Amino acid sequence: MEKFEVNILGCGAALPTTRHLPTSQVINLREKLFMIDCGEGTQVQMRRSRLKFSRLGHVFISHLHGDHCFGLIGMISTFGMMERTAELHIHSHPDLEQLLTPQIDYFCKGMSYPVVFHPFRPGERAIIYEDKSVTVETIPLRHRMPACGFLFREKPTPRHILRDMIDCYEIPLCWMNRIKNGEDYVAEDGTRIPNERLTTPSDPPRSYAYCSDTSYLPRLAEQLKGVDLLYHEATFADCDQLRARQTQHSTAAQAASLAKEAGVRQLLIGHYSSRYEDEEQLLSEARAIFPPTTAATENLCISIPPATPAKGEAER
Amino acid sequence: MEKFEVNILGCGAALPTTRHLPTSQVINLREKLFMIDCGEGTQVQMRRSRLKFSRLGHVFISHLHGDHCFGLIGMISTFGMMERTAELHIHSHPDLEQLLTPQIDYFCKGMSYPVVFHPFRPGERAIIYEDKSVTVETIPLRHRMPACGFLFREKPTPRHILRDMIDCYEIPLCWMNRIKNGEDYVAEDGTRIPNERLTTPSDPPRSYAYCSDTSYLPRLAEQLKGVDLLYHEATFADCDQLRARQTQHSTAAQAASLAKEAGVRQLLIGHYSSRYEDEEQLLSEARAIFPPTTAATENLCISIPPATPAKGEAER
Repeated sequence: MEKFEVNILGCGAALPTTRHLPTSQVINLREKLFMIDCGEGTQVQMRRSRLKFSRLGHVFISHLHGDHCFGLIGMISTFGMMERTAELHIHSHPDLEQLLTPQIDYFCKGMSYPVVFHPFRPGERAIIYEDKSVTVETIPLRHRMPACGFLFREKPTPRHILRDMIDCYEIPLCWMNRIKNGEDYVAEDGTRIPNERLTTPSDPPRSYAYCSDTSYLPRLAEQLKGVDLLYHEATFADCDQLRARQTQHSTAAQAASLAKEAGVRQLLIGHYSSRYEDEEQLLSEARAIFPPTTAATENLCISIPPATPAKGEAER
Repeated sequence: MEKFEVNILGCGAALPTTRHLPTSQVINLREKLFMIDCGEGTQVQMRRSRLKFSRLGHVFISHLHGDHCFGLIGMISTFGMMERTAELHIHSHPDLEQLLTPQIDYFCKGMSYPVVFHPFRPGERAIIYEDKSVTVETIPLRHRMPACGFLFREKPTPRHILRDMIDCYEIPLCWMNRIKNGEDYVAEDGTRIPNERLTTPSDPPRSYAYCSDTSYLPRLAEQLKGVDLLYHEATFADCDQLRARQTQHSTAAQAASLAKEAGVRQLLIGHYSSRYEDEEQLLSEARAIFPPTTAATENLCISIPPATPAKGEAER
């Protein structure tokens, strides 16, 4: 199965603690790395998680609060010192470019690679990135400034060829792509071999959604329907519900309610307020509503398995 | 004895490693905190070293390479979230103000306290800060951009009054300050009591010098003469001497030679290149030339004792 992993680099809220770092995550999809948010300390956390700098091509910034983007300039500067040549693409609210450019110009003079900004409007639901294996869609959120989450959807992969059957029917090589894409084989004499005899289904495409920072938004259930893994902020415990509302954050229970309503497979909570000594309370409040909940922690790596094992997988 | 401590928050060079953080230190002088440099991650390191944010009033930036200042915006922003009201003073090359101001304006809207910039010219030796207990003087260095070190000199403290002798000679209260400052007491009848009978000497004033980043500059020995503790960068080992020259850094042996030449009491080395697995080699190369050398490490706290115990101290 192709790799689809979420690496947590930081899962604390804005105020620094010695237990958590500000927000950053790296999605490893088939050995290509995608970063979501980049709080202070992210570059060291990448080292700690043994994620290769050179594999990172795209960074997605949810909103322009410092705890989600102050690590960018250090990381950009380090890539320059390491003489990176590949483009680094930054997808964010349009304001980021004018904030970062003077810093890059000053601190990274004569840099060896280009930083390419891709502005988007966080308030509009749109596909902002696409390649042959994934689409990234914005999830408009409600926070004290324009903010959005990101929905990573793997594209369907071709069906698995059953080599023995191909040999048995003496199917020519030029048919392989059509058969992988689900076509029946039709021999020169008109004999039709149904695709199901020649292939097994590919793994169902997987999906990952990131929602932070945001008020509790029940309307998200529609966009998040059936997602394999949802990361949702759980800044506060139930007892601080009022504070959550005032600061436009969510409680652990609200994150869990949304996960349940959307029918996601797994929930990962994070963005913990510095006021809590540990995450036990947040985790138990979420699990009471949605049992398959995990508490994020720095350098945790979660692998997203396919929803139902593909036939070929099950037979092994 | 009054507190004079150096807290190492980060002592690595520019490239991130999981062993060291970029440069930052905090001087604790009589419970007032002074920061030198502020690399990425400094605010968390302050927490880790249990240094109170509210006691920090002044930050001195040696030069505008990212590994010496990328932590400023995060720290400034955090102080704002904590509703600090006291001014934060930043002493640096004049360029810093125009680099930081747009970031402060965007990320710290409606901030609760003022950041006050104090530009200075790193190439000129000058006293850039002074209060009742300390002066801070620049140490012009040679690096790939304008850079300087900082020399913290404690001011002499008044002599210690011998209470019993004051009572014995029935000296009036209004004389106390003059006696503490070394004057003899002259009674109304003209009797003179020498100051030495009424006081013991205060602790000799202490000094701390910080030199990073810089080429080896033997001429610094004159300005650093007799300093109690010298922190000097030791980016490279002897085998990488050429690299040190090319990048305008120093080797551990060069740091030690300067310490020896200047007759400092103790040497602290740091700013280690990421190429070394540990600091053993650097430390042994320095100690071969200047035995009282210590290798800096994150969250190390070094207390600076007075050069010779004051008489009062010795008698206790």
